[in-house]
Amino acid sequence: MKSKTILLGHGSGGRLSHELITSIFVRHFGNPILNQQGDAAVFAIEQGALAFTTDSYVVDPIFFPGADIGKLAVAGTVNDLSVSGAQPLYLSAGFIIEEGLEVALLEKVVESMATEAKKAGIYIVTGDTKVVDRGKCDKLFINTAGVGMVKPGYEQLQSGKFIQPGDKIIINGAIGDHGMAVMSARNQLNIQSQLQSDCASLNGLINELDQHREHIHFMRDATRGGLGTVLAELCDKRPFGVNIEEEAIPVHEGVRGMCELLGFDPLYVANEGKVVLVVGAAATDQIVDIMRMHPLGKEAFVIGEISQDHPGKCWLQTAIGGNRIVDMLAGEQLPRIC
Amino acid sequence: MKSKTILLGHGSGGRLSHELITSIFVRHFGNPILNQQGDAAVFAIEQGALAFTTDSYVVDPIFFPGADIGKLAVAGTVNDLSVSGAQPLYLSAGFIIEEGLEVALLEKVVESMATEAKKAGIYIVTGDTKVVDRGKCDKLFINTAGVGMVKPGYEQLQSGKFIQPGDKIIINGAIGDHGMAVMSARNQLNIQSQLQSDCASLNGLINELDQHREHIHFMRDATRGGLGTVLAELCDKRPFGVNIEEEAIPVHEGVRGMCELLGFDPLYVANEGKVVLVVGAAATDQIVDIMRMHPLGKEAFVIGEISQDHPGKCWLQTAIGGNRIVDMLAGEQLPRIC
Repeated sequence: MKSKTILLGHGSGGRLSHELITSIFVRHFGNPILNQQGDAAVFAIEQGALAFTTDSYVVDPIFFPGADIGKLAVAGTVNDLSVSGAQPLYLSAGFIIEEGLEVALLEKVVESMATEAKKAGIYIVTGDTKVVDRGKCDKLFINTAGVGMVKPGYEQLQSGKFIQPGDKIIINGAIGDHGMAVMSARNQLNIQSQLQSDCASLNGLINELDQHREHIHFMRDATRGGLGTVLAELCDKRPFGVNIEEEAIPVHEGVRGMCELLGFDPLYVANEGKVVLVVGAAATDQIVDIMRMHPLGKEAFVIGEISQDHPGKCWLQTAIGGNRIVDMLAGEQLPRIC
Repeated sequence: MKSKTILLGHGSGGRLSHELITSIFVRHFGNPILNQQGDAAVFAIEQGALAFTTDSYVVDPIFFPGADIGKLAVAGTVNDLSVSGAQPLYLSAGFIIEEGLEVALLEKVVESMATEAKKAGIYIVTGDTKVVDRGKCDKLFINTAGVGMVKPGYEQLQSGKFIQPGDKIIINGAIGDHGMAVMSARNQLNIQSQLQSDCASLNGLINELDQHREHIHFMRDATRGGLGTVLAELCDKRPFGVNIEEEAIPVHEGVRGMCELLGFDPLYVANEGKVVLVVGAAATDQIVDIMRMHPLGKEAFVIGEISQDHPGKCWLQTAIGGNRIVDMLAGEQLPRIC
């Protein structure tokens, strides 16, 4: 790249755009489909059910302990496909860049995306770059869309129609790490901590459970809105309720401390590497065992169950023995967390 | 919607997000696939070649004569699929919204997207909303990604390998309307004009040409960078050149006048409803005739041809008889034009 900062011309569609695409994007993401550089990526696909999803990432700051906006943009979309029962295959990447961003920073983010894509076993096959004038966006926003093939037996997974009273609810590890890691990186707070975002692609962990797919009744990743919102949504307007035990929910000490300090409820703090599973009671132990053998499931726990009582409501049994309703996040705890 | 403006909480993933999704997005885009509201849209697909593309839209202002950011976000992605030889099927929509945007404005954009989606015969099946604090983006950015099935016979279209000397180059109408319409809408210029953006979904027009698909050797839509950049790219590093006649290129009077006034070259001004076709010489007249019968091809013209001479270069024969090389746009004429 001739320029050390991003210029408006890098979004022109002309010669500077070509330079940026060739020397940064294609160099790091390069694969036979992307390298065609057509108006659309074209690839062969088998007959079946296709899963298609999108997310924009506006996290502030763009680098934080454990991850960055690039890793997040890959893992987040991989996870949306994975919890839909799909094998993630191809991603698009759309960049909105603020004029003046250092090219070296952009490249660091792009490298991070390429590394995570490789780890997740997917390809970034098409993209787009827009540059907006200084002050009209905040450094860098990334949109990724993803396509994947739904694995046989998972076609109806998202409908939730297999969920039934007695099913157990499992999470693959501690909650709140991502949200608190991003918070700790915001300069104005000046907080010292060892917190790391849990940002990770979950398709590998979820694939390990395929042998038990007939017992997996529902999956969702607990991102914005946190575990609490996922649990509230799970039974919202449904003929069953959810019972959760507060003490069973893993929370790292650092997250608990920081939440207390800042007045946050870990239940509503964002995660970027946590999947909530609803599974048939009989297979619960086997599924937890498999999860714990995977690096991303070492802290897997059964945190509650589906109940015939209080349909539509999620009840949390607190550590001191009381009960409270877990509702969806009402306002906004932490803007720009992903 | 209870609030008349967008709040940070509308991007929280919690209750306010649900309200926004239900009362604006699902209400206007609603279709059986979107209505499932899973982490990913899931739909059946036939075996074949899938086309997958993405674009972010950051046009300023978000409303301009003839279109708006919403119509643009649908038509632009539909067109990228169409010129790849694909039948556009499904779109994702990712919104990045500035805190404080009027809900009524957002809804007007969403309505416009729904109208254009219906016109193009495609469905918006999945989406995402992020809200950033005031001053951290400019009102509204939209990303759309799209998937479509490549029509039989078009699998290799984008490679350009069918292009050969003697082929004719056709455009479906006048250039520069979009760029100049957006410019005229920028308040600071205070220009009065009757210009309208040419923003339109081209899949209908392109489908009309399917009976001649063996004669269609290449297609590309001339957006950012304009017709000039498409022509320069067409022969860049290829064993053939391009000859263009300036007088054959349709340019509306208003665009010509405004370009002269502002010092722009219409060749590099953005279009959002223009396709450049490279076709076998023998079928040229028939293809132009079919195009002219379609509302979006009434001003179709043959503007030049593929040449054995000057490989890698595009030569423009000017109206006064001279020749000049048409290169890719070097810098940036008009930032945030799409």
